[in-house]
Amino acid sequence: MAVLLTEQEISEALGDLAGWKHEGDALVKECEFANFVQAFAFMTRVAMRAEKIDHHPDWSNSYNRIHISLTSHDAGGLTSKDLALAAAINRELSK
Amino acid sequence: MAVLLTEQEISEALGDLAGWKHEGDALVKECEFANFVQAFAFMTRVAMRAEKIDHHPDWSNSYNRIHISLTSHDAGGLTSKDLALAAAINRELSK
Repeated sequence: MAVLLTEQEISEALGDLAGWKHEGDALVKECEFANFVQAFAFMTRVAMRAEKIDHHPDWSNSYNRIHISLTSHDAGGLTSKDLALAAAINRELSK
Repeated sequence: MAVLLTEQEISEALGDLAGWKHEGDALVKECEFANFVQAFAFMTRVAMRAEKIDHHPDWSNSYNRIHISLTSHDAGGLTSKDLALAAAINRELSK
């Protein structure tokens, strides 16, 4: 089972993860796009990344808005996989 | 502005819309797939349909599960657009 991150590790990581917040057992982020096509195109890019690293977001979409929540369900909290996915999502957002 | 459906129109329509429930101002459906790839492939097909008819779902995804909620925000409730999208989603589910 993956090792849970400490509070300090999470705090330090958030310094490099623009727009992410630590809420409960998850990292969360709100994203807004110009329209649905832009939002879903982003989701599609993230879906490819998530499948590749075998770690998937809990997310919702309403037209141009997306709410993303990352946690490691099997570990019961945040692990390095969540940090990796959050970083990958930020890279996709900057494209 | 689109015309809101009556309770009777909604009830009659639900008879032809397998798996949909009327909750508040929305039609909702839960879908489960074999894995994330199957779930997201379905979402992608629905996204194309939604964009084509310019009516978009509020939906969330967690790995192989998808929760869909349809309503006409501009009309403040359910309209014929929601029935059309629900039917399109069911057609995609049956493929």
